[in-house]
Amino acid sequence: MSVDKSLRMRRLFNLLTNKTVLYPIDHGVTMGPIEGIENIRAAVGAALGEPVDGVILHKGAIVRCLDTLSVDRNMAVIMHVSASVSLSPHVNEKVLVGSVEEAVRLGCDGVSVHVNLGPRHDTRMLRDFGKVSRDCVKYGMPLLAMMYCRTEAGDELSESGNRIAARAAMELGADIIKVNYTGSPRSFERVVAGCDVPVIVAGGGATATLLEFLEKIEGAMQAGASGVAVGRNVFQHRQPRLLLRGLAHLIHSQMPAKQVAELIEGELNDERPAEVVHGDRGTGTNHRTTAAVA
Amino acid sequence: MSVDKSLRMRRLFNLLTNKTVLYPIDHGVTMGPIEGIENIRAAVGAALGEPVDGVILHKGAIVRCLDTLSVDRNMAVIMHVSASVSLSPHVNEKVLVGSVEEAVRLGCDGVSVHVNLGPRHDTRMLRDFGKVSRDCVKYGMPLLAMMYCRTEAGDELSESGNRIAARAAMELGADIIKVNYTGSPRSFERVVAGCDVPVIVAGGGATATLLEFLEKIEGAMQAGASGVAVGRNVFQHRQPRLLLRGLAHLIHSQMPAKQVAELIEGELNDERPAEVVHGDRGTGTNHRTTAAVA
Amino acid sequence: MSVDKSLRMRRLFNLLTNKTVLYPIDHGVTMGPIEGIENIRAAVGAALGEPVDGVILHKGAIVRCLDTLSVDRNMAVIMHVSASVSLSPHVNEKVLVGSVEEAVRLGCDGVSVHVNLGPRHDTRMLRDFGKVSRDCVKYGMPLLAMMYCRTEAGDELSESGNRIAARAAMELGADIIKVNYTGSPRSFERVVAGCDVPVIVAGGGATATLLEFLEKIEGAMQAGASGVAVGRNVFQHRQPRLLLRGLAHLIHSQMPAKQVAELIEGELNDERPAEVVHGDRGTGTNHRTTAAVA
Amino acid sequence: MSVDKSLRMRRLFNLLTNKTVLYPIDHGVTMGPIEGIENIRAAVGAALGEPVDGVILHKGAIVRCLDTLSVDRNMAVIMHVSASVSLSPHVNEKVLVGSVEEAVRLGCDGVSVHVNLGPRHDTRMLRDFGKVSRDCVKYGMPLLAMMYCRTEAGDELSESGNRIAARAAMELGADIIKVNYTGSPRSFERVVAGCDVPVIVAGGGATATLLEFLEKIEGAMQAGASGVAVGRNVFQHRQPRLLLRGLAHLIHSQMPAKQVAELIEGELNDERPAEVVHGDRGTGTNHRTTAAVA
Amino acid sequence: MSVDKSLRMRRLFNLLTNKTVLYPIDHGVTMGPIEGIENIRAAVGAALGEPVDGVILHKGAIVRCLDTLSVDRNMAVIMHVSASVSLSPHVNEKVLVGSVEEAVRLGCDGVSVHVNLGPRHDTRMLRDFGKVSRDCVKYGMPLLAMMYCRTEAGDELSESGNRIAARAAMELGADIIKVNYTGSPRSFERVVAGCDVPVIVAGGGATATLLEFLEKIEGAMQAGASGVAVGRNVFQHRQPRLLLRGLAHLIHSQMPAKQVAELIEGELNDERPAEVVHGDRGTGTNHRTTAAVA
Repeated sequence: MSVDKSLRMRRLFNLLTNKTVLYPIDHGVTMGPIEGIENIRAAVGAALGEPVDGVILHKGAIVRCLDTLSVDRNMAVIMHVSASVSLSPHVNEKVLVGSVEEAVRLGCDGVSVHVNLGPRHDTRMLRDFGKVSRDCVKYGMPLLAMMYCRTEAGDELSESGNRIAARAAMELGADIIKVNYTGSPRSFERVVAGCDVPVIVAGGGATATLLEFLEKIEGAMQAGASGVAVGRNVFQHRQPRLLLRGLAHLIHSQMPAKQVAELIEGELNDERPAEVVHGDRGTGTNHRTTAAVA
Repeated sequence: MSVDKSLRMRRLFNLLTNKTVLYPIDHGVTMGPIEGIENIRAAVGAALGEPVDGVILHKGAIVRCLDTLSVDRNMAVIMHVSASVSLSPHVNEKVLVGSVEEAVRLGCDGVSVHVNLGPRHDTRMLRDFGKVSRDCVKYGMPLLAMMYCRTEAGDELSESGNRIAARAAMELGADIIKVNYTGSPRSFERVVAGCDVPVIVAGGGATATLLEFLEKIEGAMQAGASGVAVGRNVFQHRQPRLLLRGLAHLIHSQMPAKQVAELIEGELNDERPAEVVHGDRGTGTNHRTTAAVA
Repeated sequence: MSVDKSLRMRRLFNLLTNKTVLYPIDHGVTMGPIEGIENIRAAVGAALGEPVDGVILHKGAIVRCLDTLSVDRNMAVIMHVSASVSLSPHVNEKVLVGSVEEAVRLGCDGVSVHVNLGPRHDTRMLRDFGKVSRDCVKYGMPLLAMMYCRTEAGDELSESGNRIAARAAMELGADIIKVNYTGSPRSFERVVAGCDVPVIVAGGGATATLLEFLEKIEGAMQAGASGVAVGRNVFQHRQPRLLLRGLAHLIHSQMPAKQVAELIEGELNDERPAEVVHGDRGTGTNHRTTAAVA
Repeated sequence: MSVDKSLRMRRLFNLLTNKTVLYPIDHGVTMGPIEGIENIRAAVGAALGEPVDGVILHKGAIVRCLDTLSVDRNMAVIMHVSASVSLSPHVNEKVLVGSVEEAVRLGCDGVSVHVNLGPRHDTRMLRDFGKVSRDCVKYGMPLLAMMYCRTEAGDELSESGNRIAARAAMELGADIIKVNYTGSPRSFERVVAGCDVPVIVAGGGATATLLEFLEKIEGAMQAGASGVAVGRNVFQHRQPRLLLRGLAHLIHSQMPAKQVAELIEGELNDERPAEVVHGDRGTGTNHRTTAAVA
Repeated sequence: MSVDKSLRMRRLFNLLTNKTVLYPIDHGVTMGPIEGIENIRAAVGAALGEPVDGVILHKGAIVRCLDTLSVDRNMAVIMHVSASVSLSPHVNEKVLVGSVEEAVRLGCDGVSVHVNLGPRHDTRMLRDFGKVSRDCVKYGMPLLAMMYCRTEAGDELSESGNRIAARAAMELGADIIKVNYTGSPRSFERVVAGCDVPVIVAGGGATATLLEFLEKIEGAMQAGASGVAVGRNVFQHRQPRLLLRGLAHLIHSQMPAKQVAELIEGELNDERPAEVVHGDRGTGTNHRTTAAVA
């Protein structure tokens, strides 16, 4: 990392633990106002005062939420500059819709870019990544690379695919790399080992239970991950604030996943004692909205 | 203020009180390594963890202190872009030595510019101010204007002079204005009233006692000031940390100056009971190092 | 070559022999953290103090290795600005991911670009080459062109294909040209003869024995090559340092390949006397990691 | 220092001792082709192969000497961008005659700028310094600031003046600061202490004997200096190469000044046994050419 | 010289002799339409087909003369970018009135800039020179520096003054330097020796006889000059074409001045046998128009 990025980087990671809990709310471009983010200001507002190190938003959303964001000095703002829309036949082909300069003007603390490797236009996405990376150096802006394997071989969760994707991002200038969990601490450790910058794990798709979800993240942390970026699993949770706090326990205090799950469920039960909490997920008809747990 | 500046502005003011304690350590360019700031990293380090909303530093000092600054997420960094050197016959003629773009690259939260009205080249300083103000809008960077009356009439502390200087800054794009105290809450109230942006008061020169110094700031706050920028009176104090805490009590908690002074002196006496603390000031042979109180 | 490039060029070639041993470690983008370069800093660190005239790295890797690189004044740094990822269906379509300006800012001594002639998008690669070449003149930056024949005719190692590819690079502004070995000194001599700038030979794919590998390079040198760029054959060797020293003997001192091989094997045997060193290669299941010899 | 400057900085300092012997040959602009540098190529050529960490030249001289400089990979090249001519009534008013971009294009390792504090136009020189400093960050170019006190009070060699001048340079972005010796290790130590970047000492004016000259530098080194920049005292010496070697002994090996002087004089006596070497200096009618010792 | 300037430089010097006869017709800006250049097209036209290596014109004059210039492929065009007007009290303060970019657009082969050292604003002229020099490198444009000593000491023709002026120009990037003759081959030799680029001699002021004028130039050539730039002494001559041919004999064929003078006078006598040729000059009322001989 260029030292020019130091002051902004200090806002993306907890200074004591050197770990981060990021909260992406950038799904509206791809999926529209899905459950949990119908009102973008309410969704962002729900994170205020919670132990979130940063939110990830598209530029228009940042402008809409400026007043909300301005009441929390400790929550960094990362501008997401990649987009595709689910209506398109090319939903895997992310294009640049924002620039580092715009992020600078809005006072953001970082920029995130999304690269899918495998699809038809992945060379363009790679080139776009190179440009954003260059501008991030020019303006001292931390760069979060969201790297996804979308090969026909179905590498999305493979160790080999994610090792390559993550490493490529590092060599091309990423300061933080977000990848999918590869299924086991052992395999994820090899992904992390191949990079020389912090790797964070994506919240990923639907899991059967809250515990399963938390154990996945716990596995990533044991493998050397530097944190997590969880969106839908938070905002589509019945109590986003509870989940954010739980994640902070998991990431910053190394509280075991099991204990975190009990804590969250305890709070939920206090509030709603008679309801079954887990086991009713994964039935959504739209695969894009089924990622949430609990 | 442009909304583009919102995210950075939220870091310059305490979000609960909407007031600010700024700590300028930019004296090295003008005066050299004077007492208290011989080692710039140590000087900045002494503010870490203290209730300082922001430090004001020259660009080279920021680069030297990046690692120090990076351990405190809550202390904003303002880059000072004006300079003159006391060795020069033109010490009142500030020139631009830094740019907003440099502040952007370093991840600063604001830029400050110094304008002396009155001297031979004040038109150039005004023009420079216009340029910096323009670039601050371009990059969404908050602009702190340090406005000084240096007329032959000796307007430095006059109400009329400071009213004009402060108002001019507001009309030309300042987001925060720093002026000297005009001697009474009533007169300072009129300075503040003429602006439509936060006005903060400079720590100013030496005062006979700590109480006197604090009462001056208390007066400014009563007049509607939004905070204070105190440099030498802090770093040349025997216990800079004590003074910073005292200022925070005064600014954010509205603790009376008298009580703050007793608090600071109590702590000092605990530490060094037999020594006379006040009343021995103002005797320095070098006018440049005699600004400190207590 | 523009004289503006003189000062940087003097760092890419040994001033006594006018030959060069370059060490590319840019494979991570295409192949991920393969054996030998899992840890980029360790891989670069292994070349410190060895007779390497320059390393070739992607921009992110340079930033990660700045402290490592900074302890060796004699090892030039070349930034590779082309990339593709093996996960992609378009691995032969290199795109620009870095710029000459970035290389300038990092204090690099050269820039390298990769052009594949033959694939679908080779016209774009050619145009990209033209742009990089233009910027190299603008900033006085030496340009290393890695030219590969990837025609359907399978020209990769042909004399005719490489003659065209190399010559095209020279005419479009390359200062150094890297091509594959064409199989014999006689044919490679004709490749070299068609250019008017230094031609260096790529380490290339797996060979049965260390001697075979070294003889290939020896052949290129006899044909007039100005040096070599060897990556995997070095970092996937059991003792990268031994191989680098061997290459220096071959390139700068014209030690016969046979003698170099004996020297390296002698050292290896001293270290591990009872083990069979060669002849067990080429069996890797992943074609990407089978390039190494011995 | 920005890490972007790392690769170039490693060429300006000996990596083992972290000290530097710089050789400025930029006098031609101010004084014309004075003795020792009539032929710029010969003057630069005389440093080839000697333990010189870097030469300081104007841009036109660099272009003239490119072929000479290109045979020594270890001698860094610093472009001096300030100038005044002795024919002018304003010889103290340095103006910018070169840019960082030009230094980049020529492959230089650093840029040096000269600021005189005290004269009529020192504010302009300060502003120029700010601009060069900005461009140095932009292009990752190390900046050597030559700071001189030229006040009416005659501060040229004063501790107080040089403390301010040096500190100002650091705060405004200098990576290396060159000042005059202040007469004693104790005073120079205070100059060095006020900066947070390497301070090197100027060779300065004529001294009665070689030993006196060397002892001055020895004093600076004892005070914490990081090296020396000596021009006329080298190139107007009867044997520039001997003096450069002597300086290297003094700076890098901490050989006592007395021993270095004996070494140099021994070599001179061997060569020219019957001639009186010292004590016949300082009689030049042109004050500009009388700086040399021995 | 940068090789980028090679193609244009080859037009400024005779390729066999490596010398040049330049013909400046830039006097109109300073002096108005003086005798010999009332009609700029006629003045330029008179040089067509003659052995002139290049004309020096202001940009407006070039535009007016484009059709005239277009019929002679062998006469290079140098754009003069400095100007002052004799009506001004500041006639010695040349300012930039043209740019290298304009010269590029017009297809010129060189640019010339005029610097007076000594007057009040010479620092500005020096800075301007630095800028033009920078742009000349950027665009590959040869730079002719006209250096004049205008000190109060009256250094205009002194060896010491011209040595400094010429050397300064070389160090700051001039490709060709024009200075006044210093009175003797011996002194001029020292001026030439201090530069490392071609020095040409100015035609200078009025001389008593044609022979005297030619001997001055002959002296300069013997001292190592690379040619001459003569304006008024040509266009105010009764037969400019004769003088241009004579200068070519002197410069390119090393014909002795005496023989050249006889040749010219012979031709004149053939044409106008009864007229007294010399000795009737120097009676002009405007000292600026009395420079011409014969």
